[in-house]
Amino acid sequence: MLKDFEKKEKENKKALAEETKALSAKLLGQQQLLMSAKLPVIMLIEGWAAAGKGSLIKELISEIDPRFYRVESPVIVPESQQRYPFLYQYAGAIPENGKITFLDSGWMEGAVQKFLRHEITKDEYRRRIRQVNEFERQLRDGGYIVIKVFLHIDKDEQFDRLRSLAEDPSTEWRVTEDDLWQHKEYKRFREAYDEFMKKTEEAAPWYILDGSRRKTAVRDSMKLLTERIDSALESGRYVGEPFEEKFPLKKMQKLSDVDLSPAISDDEYKGELHRLQTRLSELHNIVYRKKIPVILCYEGWDAAGKGGNIRRVAYPLDPRGFDVNPIASPLPHELNRQFLWRFWTRLPRTGHIAIFDRTWYGRVMVERLEGFCSEKDWQRAYNEINEFERTLTEWGAVVIKFWIHIDQDTQLARFTERQNTPEKQWKITDEDWRNREKWDLYEPAVDEMLQKTSTKNAPWYIIESNDKKYARIKTLKIIVKALEKACENHFEQIME
Amino acid sequence: MLKDFEKKEKENKKALAEETKALSAKLLGQQQLLMSAKLPVIMLIEGWAAAGKGSLIKELISEIDPRFYRVESPVIVPESQQRYPFLYQYAGAIPENGKITFLDSGWMEGAVQKFLRHEITKDEYRRRIRQVNEFERQLRDGGYIVIKVFLHIDKDEQFDRLRSLAEDPSTEWRVTEDDLWQHKEYKRFREAYDEFMKKTEEAAPWYILDGSRRKTAVRDSMKLLTERIDSALESGRYVGEPFEEKFPLKKMQKLSDVDLSPAISDDEYKGELHRLQTRLSELHNIVYRKKIPVILCYEGWDAAGKGGNIRRVAYPLDPRGFDVNPIASPLPHELNRQFLWRFWTRLPRTGHIAIFDRTWYGRVMVERLEGFCSEKDWQRAYNEINEFERTLTEWGAVVIKFWIHIDQDTQLARFTERQNTPEKQWKITDEDWRNREKWDLYEPAVDEMLQKTSTKNAPWYIIESNDKKYARIKTLKIIVKALEKACENHFEQIME
Repeated sequence: MLKDFEKKEKENKKALAEETKALSAKLLGQQQLLMSAKLPVIMLIEGWAAAGKGSLIKELISEIDPRFYRVESPVIVPESQQRYPFLYQYAGAIPENGKITFLDSGWMEGAVQKFLRHEITKDEYRRRIRQVNEFERQLRDGGYIVIKVFLHIDKDEQFDRLRSLAEDPSTEWRVTEDDLWQHKEYKRFREAYDEFMKKTEEAAPWYILDGSRRKTAVRDSMKLLTERIDSALESGRYVGEPFEEKFPLKKMQKLSDVDLSPAISDDEYKGELHRLQTRLSELHNIVYRKKIPVILCYEGWDAAGKGGNIRRVAYPLDPRGFDVNPIASPLPHELNRQFLWRFWTRLPRTGHIAIFDRTWYGRVMVERLEGFCSEKDWQRAYNEINEFERTLTEWGAVVIKFWIHIDQDTQLARFTERQNTPEKQWKITDEDWRNREKWDLYEPAVDEMLQKTSTKNAPWYIIESNDKKYARIKTLKIIVKALEKACENHFEQIME
Repeated sequence: MLKDFEKKEKENKKALAEETKALSAKLLGQQQLLMSAKLPVIMLIEGWAAAGKGSLIKELISEIDPRFYRVESPVIVPESQQRYPFLYQYAGAIPENGKITFLDSGWMEGAVQKFLRHEITKDEYRRRIRQVNEFERQLRDGGYIVIKVFLHIDKDEQFDRLRSLAEDPSTEWRVTEDDLWQHKEYKRFREAYDEFMKKTEEAAPWYILDGSRRKTAVRDSMKLLTERIDSALESGRYVGEPFEEKFPLKKMQKLSDVDLSPAISDDEYKGELHRLQTRLSELHNIVYRKKIPVILCYEGWDAAGKGGNIRRVAYPLDPRGFDVNPIASPLPHELNRQFLWRFWTRLPRTGHIAIFDRTWYGRVMVERLEGFCSEKDWQRAYNEINEFERTLTEWGAVVIKFWIHIDQDTQLARFTERQNTPEKQWKITDEDWRNREKWDLYEPAVDEMLQKTSTKNAPWYIIESNDKKYARIKTLKIIVKALEKACENHFEQIME
């Protein structure tokens, strides 16, 4: 009897090994199909300490060409030292089209650990769960294949594994304080993992793998990966449907109703400029010490005076504490990722100011009107942007958005002046003239954008800029007021 | 009498203000000239704490369009926490063509402070001074305008400034422990700064500015900047002359003399592969714990078997501790910087392994043969590369370079097989066939490269790869041996 049993076991093992090998070969073949279909894959591997996440990844990548994947192992920084939003490092790790990122634990471990350590409140934990759902949905809707697995072992199994690691002098160092703490708190972790998974199934389902059966887990995860790739190759890149979430919105004027006559005298300008810049300089100090991140967004017509406006805002700031991000057409590696990736990676640290000279709103203006993305893409973007900005303000950031506004006559006058002044000619290109002809297409798009994305937490301000000096003073006043409010109100919302 | 004096003072002040204003306007005009001439500027601003570096930079940038400059304020990390080579963050900060980087203190402060804190030995300090000279020369030779100023104040002046900062509650926080320590050790710092400047004048001279006269310092630095830009615009982009430094070299075989017949039986291959991969896995653990950085470089003929070789090396490694960097043609923002920039920014952290699938040696192969750089550029590159690699090995890195070698018949056979196997067709492109035709041009270039850059510290190994299995075993053996040696020998060379 035992002999038969052993024989069968051996056959099973052999079959498993063969199946795994076949799947691995299949994955190898899927590489170039992924590449030609330009499909990106993000595979999140969560699970218990010592469950074998590392060796699972090792098997998954063993046959793939290193040009097609990356393995990322995000580090969990204590909340008090966290200088960026919670999702920052995970968003930064998303792959280019045609490539795969394997995450050796990620946003689940990051959220759960901090919650169980009481580094974040229950409310903040709930917000992060919501942010995770939004993030995963945005990836899925943007055509990413999102795969999430959880490698499960029970407490006894974990005990055995941690002990055998600890007893071998060459692996002893692998057992960390965190691991021992997790083992001690196994029950609390179990509940938290379970709850987190239940609450994050909206956009991408979880798959639980049995970590105690290593080879089966490898086969199963490889099967999952190849099947998901197959099905995406067959159905083509997924493009998410637009949908609307109700954000509390600020009512915006239509551009055509805006009175562009406001102007300011030279004397008043000089006095106000000096006063506001001095105040802004003081506030920059406070913002820095209170670690409040500040994000100033500039959009507007060509020749509306964005550059000069930004310079007046930047002048009083300590150059060590701010950055201006000029946003041009995306580079190839930016174009090949979800559209917010290049903005996620340019966020300021806490206490710093980031000025964006053009922004993520390109999605619903130039990309919409020039057909650089599909209709569904830009229609979805209003909601995606509102979610992105809510993530930023929940992190504690001050987010202010300016539409620098002029009328067509003023633009023509400025274009003509640039054309006729040798040292200003570089500022005017054929593209500017071409864009000008599309004013009537842009204006309703801008109106729609202002209506749909002027949230209470990240409002738009229309800045009348036929008189540039008036515009600068108005912008400075808005910034000063917002920073004063933030500095007064700021308390540690996240930490208990 | 006093009235006359006061009148004259007032006139002087007015003249100074006007001069500064004119220079600022000039700088504004130089922007687009820099951009069209594609000239990059790096301006290093060093000096005493409280000497006014920040406000000097503020004035310098006040008129420039933010799209054209960046201000970087490198942080000095304690040597024990330093995960990258000394020059890493400064090299990462160099601007693109047409743009300016202002460094609010940089490699001088970084080196001097660590030396005075006894975080590095005198020998290591000397090495860093040499590395700085090499770095500055490479920038200059690569067409960068390198400007270095030192903002000087005496001890009394520093005392007054620190006191007035400390007495004002709103600026009190600006006075750091470091500043107070520097003030206390003013004399030692003075000597060290002086010595550092004397020893780093080879490629880019120092300009000392009087920090106690703020407005004059602004005018002078602006004058310096605009004059240097003017002169570069006039003379055109500088292209450095090649020169040879004697590096201890390992004698290399000519490719045509290499016997490509070595092969290995399947049985021996399997046994050896398993043995070496197991050993490599153990060594990866030790390397990780000892914080030894490892850099493995792969070059070789198309279809020589680089990919499969890399996979066999990567397989036993913990995916959390290594990265494969596939090097393709440079992206625009990479092409617009010194050629080593994209490799500086891809270096591994201490304890990690970086595998480069193609490397910086593209400079002396494809870029040379396709005319992507000038003759002087690639001739200079042998020396620049040797210096770069010495910087890496002095940091403690193991640097190993493989030339994966096959003959023309083998290449043809593999190309043909790829062409005829549907699932391998993506691996073969028209470019591969074109490159093949240039074999006779490439071979002498490769020979020259191997002769000139196989330094004792970062040697080349020719890997006979007509038999791919033989090649994999040979590569693994070399890596294992080098890591064993490094793990034995490694002691803290840098720390006292």
